[in-house]
Amino acid sequence: MNEHYIDLAHRLASTASDITLQYFRKDGLQVDSKADSSPVTKADRQAESAMRALIRERFPDHGIFGEEHGTHNGDAEYMWILDPIDGTRAFIDGRDTFTTLIALCHHNVPVLGLIDQPVRKERWLGIKDSPTLLNGQPVNARSKPLEEAVIATTGTQYFSKDENAHYQRVAQACAQEINGQDAYAYAQLASGRIDLVIEANLKPYDFCALVPVLEGAGAIVTDWHDQSVNLLSDGTMLVAGDKTLHNTAFALLHTVA
Amino acid sequence: MNEHYIDLAHRLASTASDITLQYFRKDGLQVDSKADSSPVTKADRQAESAMRALIRERFPDHGIFGEEHGTHNGDAEYMWILDPIDGTRAFIDGRDTFTTLIALCHHNVPVLGLIDQPVRKERWLGIKDSPTLLNGQPVNARSKPLEEAVIATTGTQYFSKDENAHYQRVAQACAQEINGQDAYAYAQLASGRIDLVIEANLKPYDFCALVPVLEGAGAIVTDWHDQSVNLLSDGTMLVAGDKTLHNTAFALLHTVA
Repeated sequence: MNEHYIDLAHRLASTASDITLQYFRKDGLQVDSKADSSPVTKADRQAESAMRALIRERFPDHGIFGEEHGTHNGDAEYMWILDPIDGTRAFIDGRDTFTTLIALCHHNVPVLGLIDQPVRKERWLGIKDSPTLLNGQPVNARSKPLEEAVIATTGTQYFSKDENAHYQRVAQACAQEINGQDAYAYAQLASGRIDLVIEANLKPYDFCALVPVLEGAGAIVTDWHDQSVNLLSDGTMLVAGDKTLHNTAFALLHTVA
Repeated sequence: MNEHYIDLAHRLASTASDITLQYFRKDGLQVDSKADSSPVTKADRQAESAMRALIRERFPDHGIFGEEHGTHNGDAEYMWILDPIDGTRAFIDGRDTFTTLIALCHHNVPVLGLIDQPVRKERWLGIKDSPTLLNGQPVNARSKPLEEAVIATTGTQYFSKDENAHYQRVAQACAQEINGQDAYAYAQLASGRIDLVIEANLKPYDFCALVPVLEGAGAIVTDWHDQSVNLLSDGTMLVAGDKTLHNTAFALLHTVA
C-alpha cells in the first residue's frame, strides 16, 4: 500500500471530523429528505465536499464515489468511496454511533478502509493483507459459538419480509441481539465486541470501507451468497468473527422454513 | 436535598468507575453465572463492596440494597440502591454502554439518581424537583410525535410473549427502534436523544436511579399501569420525552389486539 494513500485517508477522516463535530449536538441542525426519504444534513454535504476537494487536489486521476455528491472519474483504476456520515439518523439525534466511512478500491476491490468515530475518538484503519489498527493498536475479532454470539443489525425495518425471515433464523439462535448502531457495529466486531452482523440493502459507500477493517482483524466477510464483497456487490452482508461461526450462520441463514 | 448526600453519590460513582475501568476491555476477566443465569464479574462485586463501605462509613443508619450483595438496614428511612454495573453483558464484551446506577430513596421514593458511564465520562445527576445535570450542565428530554419517535428497549427477549405483543404495538408505530443499551437508553432519553423506553421485569436497582434523572429532565416516568415508579414498583417502565407522547404510547400499549 502506497503510504500516501494511507496519509490521505487519515487527512480525509480528520477533515470530516472537524466538520461533523461543529454540528453534532448543536441546536438548529437543518435536516432535509433525500429522494429515498432518508435524512441528510449540511454536515453530510460539507464533510463530503471537503473530502472530495482533498482527493482531487492530491490524486486528480483517482475516482470518487460519495453518498451525497455522486461519481467523479467513474472508470478510474483507484476509486475513493465516501460516506461522510454513516448513521445520519443517530447523528441528528445526538447519538455518537455515527461514523465516517472511507474506502479506497483498486479495480473495484477495497484495499483500504477507514471507520472513524470522532466523538469517541476511535479510528479503525484496515489495509488489505495487513493487521487492522484501532488508533494505531492492532485489534482482532473473536471466536464464539453461535449460542454465545452477539448479533447486530441496524434495524429489521431495512429488510424485506423475506430477508427478515432469513435473518431471524440466525438471530434467534444467538445469545444476544443489538441494533441501531449502523456501521459502528462492524467496527465493534473488528474489535472483538460483537460476533455477527447480518444486513441487506446496503450501498457501496456503506460497505466498502468495512471490508479491509474486518478482514485485517481476522473476521470473515461475505455477501449472502458466500461471495467476497467488493464495489459491485449486491449490498447483502454476512460478517462473523471467525470461519466456524460464519459457516454456521450461513447454513442457518439459508435454511428453508 | 442534603448536600452531603449529593457529595456521597459522586464519590460512590467515582469509586465504582476506578474499579470498573481496571477491568474493562482487559483480558482474563472472569465471568460467573448467578442463580438467574445472568453474568457477574469481579468488577461488579468489587465495585459494589467499595460503594457499600463508603455508605456505611458516612451514613451508618442508612439502608443499602445492591444487586450483588443484597440488603443492609432494610427498614431505614434512607435507602441507597446500587447497581455497580448495569449492562454486565455489554461490559464483558467491551461495549461502553454499561453504566453504574446509584439511587437514594426516602421512604421508598427515589429522591436522588445518578447514571455514570465512566468510559465516555458522562454522568447524569437527578435530584427530585431539580433540573437534571449531565456533567454539570442541564439537560432536557425532547418532544416528538409517535410517528417520529425513536424507541428503545434492551431486548425483546426480556419480555414475556404477551408483554412483547404489547410492546410491539408501540414499537411498530415509531420511526426507529434501537436496542442493546440497557439503562444508557434512559440517560439518552433524558438528554433528548431518544423518545421512548418501554421495558418490563426490571429490578429496583435497575430503575430507581433512573426516576430522578428522567423527571428532572422533563420526561414522564410511569410503570405500565400509569403509576409513578418507586422502590416497590413492579419493574415495568413506560418512559416518554413528554406527556403527549406518554399518553399516546400508554393508549397503544394497552390496545387489545
